[in-house]
Amino acid sequence: MKFEITSNFLKHLKNDLEGAEEKKIFEYISDLHAADIAEILDELSNEHAKAFYQLLDQELAADVLVELEEDTRERFLASLSSKEIAEQFIENLESDDAADIIQELPENIKEEVISHIEDVDQASDIIDLLNYEEGTAGALMAKELIAVEETWTVTKCTKEMRRQAEGIDFVYTVYVTDKKNILLGTLSLKKLLMTPARTSVQDIYKPDIISVRAGTSSEEVAQIMDKYDLVVLPVVDELNRLIGRITIDDVLDMIKEETDKDYQMASGISEDIDAQDKVWVMTRARLPWLLIGLFGGILGAQVIGLFETDLKIYPEMAFFIPLIAAMGGNVGVQSSAIIVQSLANNTLGKEGMFPKLLKEFSVAMINGLICSVLILLYTLAIEEPIHLCYTVSVSLFSVIILSGLIGTFIPLILNKYKIDPALATGPFITTTNDIFGLLIYFAVGRLMYG
Amino acid sequence: MKFEITSNFLKHLKNDLEGAEEKKIFEYISDLHAADIAEILDELSNEHAKAFYQLLDQELAADVLVELEEDTRERFLASLSSKEIAEQFIENLESDDAADIIQELPENIKEEVISHIEDVDQASDIIDLLNYEEGTAGALMAKELIAVEETWTVTKCTKEMRRQAEGIDFVYTVYVTDKKNILLGTLSLKKLLMTPARTSVQDIYKPDIISVRAGTSSEEVAQIMDKYDLVVLPVVDELNRLIGRITIDDVLDMIKEETDKDYQMASGISEDIDAQDKVWVMTRARLPWLLIGLFGGILGAQVIGLFETDLKIYPEMAFFIPLIAAMGGNVGVQSSAIIVQSLANNTLGKEGMFPKLLKEFSVAMINGLICSVLILLYTLAIEEPIHLCYTVSVSLFSVIILSGLIGTFIPLILNKYKIDPALATGPFITTTNDIFGLLIYFAVGRLMYG
Repeated sequence: MKFEITSNFLKHLKNDLEGAEEKKIFEYISDLHAADIAEILDELSNEHAKAFYQLLDQELAADVLVELEEDTRERFLASLSSKEIAEQFIENLESDDAADIIQELPENIKEEVISHIEDVDQASDIIDLLNYEEGTAGALMAKELIAVEETWTVTKCTKEMRRQAEGIDFVYTVYVTDKKNILLGTLSLKKLLMTPARTSVQDIYKPDIISVRAGTSSEEVAQIMDKYDLVVLPVVDELNRLIGRITIDDVLDMIKEETDKDYQMASGISEDIDAQDKVWVMTRARLPWLLIGLFGGILGAQVIGLFETDLKIYPEMAFFIPLIAAMGGNVGVQSSAIIVQSLANNTLGKEGMFPKLLKEFSVAMINGLICSVLILLYTLAIEEPIHLCYTVSVSLFSVIILSGLIGTFIPLILNKYKIDPALATGPFITTTNDIFGLLIYFAVGRLMYG
Repeated sequence: MKFEITSNFLKHLKNDLEGAEEKKIFEYISDLHAADIAEILDELSNEHAKAFYQLLDQELAADVLVELEEDTRERFLASLSSKEIAEQFIENLESDDAADIIQELPENIKEEVISHIEDVDQASDIIDLLNYEEGTAGALMAKELIAVEETWTVTKCTKEMRRQAEGIDFVYTVYVTDKKNILLGTLSLKKLLMTPARTSVQDIYKPDIISVRAGTSSEEVAQIMDKYDLVVLPVVDELNRLIGRITIDDVLDMIKEETDKDYQMASGISEDIDAQDKVWVMTRARLPWLLIGLFGGILGAQVIGLFETDLKIYPEMAFFIPLIAAMGGNVGVQSSAIIVQSLANNTLGKEGMFPKLLKEFSVAMINGLICSVLILLYTLAIEEPIHLCYTVSVSLFSVIILSGLIGTFIPLILNKYKIDPALATGPFITTTNDIFGLLIYFAVGRLMYG
């Protein structure tokens, strides 16, 4: 049921490609979905991939193109002329996929490709879609949809739908508009099937409909579709005229990208990578945060350097440096993660910044008390010097509270100034809190011992 | 277009509820979707919520119930008799939602509620669904679907579909089966609209169809629907007989829960919480990881204690403790996150554990070399004792490599033994690496100084 590429399959396929055994290859392909073929192509060498690709029929080839990984697609399109791209691929795609692919092309090629599209309606749809800013509903939507007018009868609807459906792969929903194309509601297939032929649409359509403006942010689109369990969402212009529709599969991809990005940020990874990426890509994605950590470590060394004389007299102070640093980091990561995730899921709540800091303060008070009492009991039990026991306990308590507040405050303030709050998570927050933690620890130590 | 609860709205609503101004309240409700009303109920006190709830018509009330947060729903259902639950809610729901809600009820109430369902078919559908193990396609699916037989004509199809559609809210797809209910393919609405009435279904249906078995894991269901961009996925039994269908909205919720959980694990949060949860819930979700961190810090202190004599002679060794600990933690989090995310996205690749460790080793070599050369230059530049310069540089290099390997190995091995690999991320990996890092640092120090 689900296709899995095996090394055995790849070996056979490569053999057959080299032997130009077209018949055998057609047999492989016949059962496969475009997404499977794209996965195979991603695994093949350039030459094999081209040989394989040429065996696909045009419609399938276009669908496969959409499913390829971006760099494979780029390499492949670079080997084609603008005319070939337009005629073999773009004309076989729905408007949103076509626009996405053209968007990826180099600036000078974009126009050439568009000029080679023969269907004027399609070309104008694509130009239209390219004009919407990335990250908006307009850039996510497709123009293909089925719409009927409220004054039509069921018979006329069916006839019109038949005509409109020709260019569309999958009918999600039938929209109802007035004469001026203003969106009024939807007509369910069920109603259409169950109503006498002469009935007018206005008597059977469902008037309350959730729609978005073309300028709505894609995050909001995702939240709306998720909240209302929508499979497809109509897009309207400022005058409420129906201009397109967004389907859930595109939004799902976007949601996954967003959450993946937040996760990577929290883990100190600066690019979208996975376990199959090359060593160099992985290194590049990970080095930036390590350098920040290195810089933080140097600052930490300087902070401790300030207290070198204390350390000479009380070397046992060094024992709990890692504990203080780690706890500050852990608390900071927890509290920043809660803010980042609540922002992503739109569950942050309406109250302002102060109540959130107050709540974090309460949580930190409880956790801080528990942890600092435990560490006090432990240090007393193993008979550390009494000054050290107090120092560790008091500074741990302070560090937990300060780190919690910093971890809550920074993502909130970043978000307020429209900067991605996920920047505040992971290594950034641990590094910041390390330094504050050390300052507190040694300052408290000097007080206690002094 | 999108409804937002404002404090002003809540104030007015509460007033009207207390004044029993039903007419005004109906006006509020008329435009609202079940998900909006659920959001409002989540914000109201128990009394207000009940008063509000009683004003909804039964079908809407049932939809709202599905959308409520679990604890609100639990509280609400606890105040009703089994008969009321069955008649007012369960009978108005589709089978998957009905089964989910019954699943949440206390064991003794479940059977009572089912015995009160009047529609025998619905009751048996629900019992059927309750039998599937959680986390499988069977537990995710709904029984409501539209199916036609391959031998029927278009006319017979339309008639049958009309009958079947009556109990179904939204028609996603028309399935085609043989006489024995074995799934053969799908019939598109487009084809149905565009074909003469006497044509037989077998001449127009699309035969290749992706389906899953009832026992398929929900992760695989999500991966399949995501990969093939499916809105709805049919579920079959061992004999390939059509038994239900899964829609994308349920899968979307599941994907979000999964990624949220991984993110929380990586951030040291042990329960599903958001910024609006109570102080106590937040504390409880965060304390466990802090205690692990505390324990790790104590172990760290013991490691340093082993080297107390060294520290007395070379107190400058203490300066770079935070750097070594932080870098070990950062590298470990990065490498475990890559594995966890690749597992979640099914992009881990087919090769075994050894090639992955080898790749991680290469990445760590490069990052380790860059970081250790930088720290060597820095420590030399600020004229630290030459032994310290070498110690920091060499141990940093070793720590980066070891942490990378640990961070890669642990989630892979957890996954191999079917334990959630996300357990290995976040505070767990930083704590482990802190301790190894300290051991390496002081061991190298003793060698260098010795």
